[in-house]
Amino acid sequence: MAGRQAIIVDWGTTNFRAYRFDAAGEALAEHRAAAGILSVTDGAFEAVLDREIGAWITADCELLFSGMITSRNGWVETPYAETPASLAALAAASLRRQHSSGAPMRFLPGVAMRQPAPDVMRGEEIQVFGACAPDEEAIVVLPGTHSKWVRHREGRIEAFHTFMTGEVFAALKGHTILGRLLPDGASGTPEAFAAGVTHMRTHAGAGLLHAAFSARSKVLFNELAPADISEYLSGLVIGAEMAGGLALGSAPGRIRLVGEPALTARYAEAARLFGLASEIAPADSTIRGFRRLAVLKETRA
Amino acid sequence: MAGRQAIIVDWGTTNFRAYRFDAAGEALAEHRAAAGILSVTDGAFEAVLDREIGAWITADCELLFSGMITSRNGWVETPYAETPASLAALAAASLRRQHSSGAPMRFLPGVAMRQPAPDVMRGEEIQVFGACAPDEEAIVVLPGTHSKWVRHREGRIEAFHTFMTGEVFAALKGHTILGRLLPDGASGTPEAFAAGVTHMRTHAGAGLLHAAFSARSKVLFNELAPADISEYLSGLVIGAEMAGGLALGSAPGRIRLVGEPALTARYAEAARLFGLASEIAPADSTIRGFRRLAVLKETRA
Repeated sequence: MAGRQAIIVDWGTTNFRAYRFDAAGEALAEHRAAAGILSVTDGAFEAVLDREIGAWITADCELLFSGMITSRNGWVETPYAETPASLAALAAASLRRQHSSGAPMRFLPGVAMRQPAPDVMRGEEIQVFGACAPDEEAIVVLPGTHSKWVRHREGRIEAFHTFMTGEVFAALKGHTILGRLLPDGASGTPEAFAAGVTHMRTHAGAGLLHAAFSARSKVLFNELAPADISEYLSGLVIGAEMAGGLALGSAPGRIRLVGEPALTARYAEAARLFGLASEIAPADSTIRGFRRLAVLKETRA
Repeated sequence: MAGRQAIIVDWGTTNFRAYRFDAAGEALAEHRAAAGILSVTDGAFEAVLDREIGAWITADCELLFSGMITSRNGWVETPYAETPASLAALAAASLRRQHSSGAPMRFLPGVAMRQPAPDVMRGEEIQVFGACAPDEEAIVVLPGTHSKWVRHREGRIEAFHTFMTGEVFAALKGHTILGRLLPDGASGTPEAFAAGVTHMRTHAGAGLLHAAFSARSKVLFNELAPADISEYLSGLVIGAEMAGGLALGSAPGRIRLVGEPALTARYAEAARLFGLASEIAPADSTIRGFRRLAVLKETRA
């Protein structure tokens, strides 16, 4: 698609992000909104797209979509590319549609692993390819609502595992007895986060169902301040994810983190406490992934 | 207290249960209500007690309380008896008050373990003593909102561990993406429960945060019916508890289950799938526990 103006739309469950490029592949603009697919009613995806970035869209640009917008609950459901999945396989499985302006639209597939148990992702695969050199072997960890641990090797996503870390954290904090002890507006300390990670590392065998209760019993015995419950709980769930990722044997002593800086910083600290090296991938991994897909021209950047 | 009429009040977070006995220790009546301490506003515990069983209370009976009613959020906060805790230690730590009728009231303590990490229970300890002979060594498992795995030996509670199984199940089902796929009114199959237990047994290392996502990905690939999500998830969380209990090294090949029949049957099946023998304790373990505390006369039963 080099030579055409391109608009990349990374449209997930809770967030909408779009990037506009000129025909030479130079970034022109970026737009973010809390307009994830869960906020779209009656399937009005095109109307939301036009509301957010309609001013960018002309008949001679191409729109590229990845993320949950390509899922069953999104706009155009694409099939999954199965592991091991290359960029070429993603391109081959994409579906073409036309915007009402006449602009061509391409919806990229997600990636599925079928054995030993099924697992799926939509959107993270582009970031993984953007975070790795083509011939590089790496474990890429993408923290979030549904964190992913992904093995990239020989230009392919070989295997990956999802952890419901962010969503379970929110459910524990918002909908169990643990959150009821937390004062409104409490901010917590980094020490409480580290204590949660360390507790989980040293009690991993008993699992999160047991460790989570310590957020209550430690408060009863003044070993944890109520204001620190949220940070401690964050440490427990991220620690549980670290223990799980390590148990899967997928981390050769080092992980590469992709995501929001506040979250990757937490994961880097948790990895350190688990004796695991980590590095933060460039913030523009999504854009780099689209460049590797050759939908954007290479630029000096 | 033998020789006095006795009323036992097992008052928990969500349920109120009371048992009335004559001076000879014979059971006269039982009363249950969904009137747990969370439903009591403005500390009106005595008013709720009188509403539920006021007709039983006279100045010459004794009222005995155990459960969350003796917690910081309850009526009279009792100190914890620390492990190893005997029945005599529970009796010694109980607090005395007087009902407005003049009847004496005793509030029994909960039990705390302080090392290696703090853990607490209130109410289950009486059931554990009721489920075991005084000199018996056993692992007693009490399924529920906050399940307990308790080691009873030489007449004492030596150690125990809490698992937030019931509460996390409800939070996952009610407040994550997993429950949103479940059709209203779906009942599910025992096979789905067994599949959840088995999945957790074979993927225990990666932990519940990873296994829980399989309730979604298996539905996407038609390996699990949406109507079976709740049963599968129940199998996953109970399986996670089994894996945790076994990892703690607290189960010498056999557990004794105390609780509601529908729940102990689930746990017995999960234990079987983990290769762990189980037996169901008598349904009247609470009453047996109070008999061992010598607040009720022995009867022919």
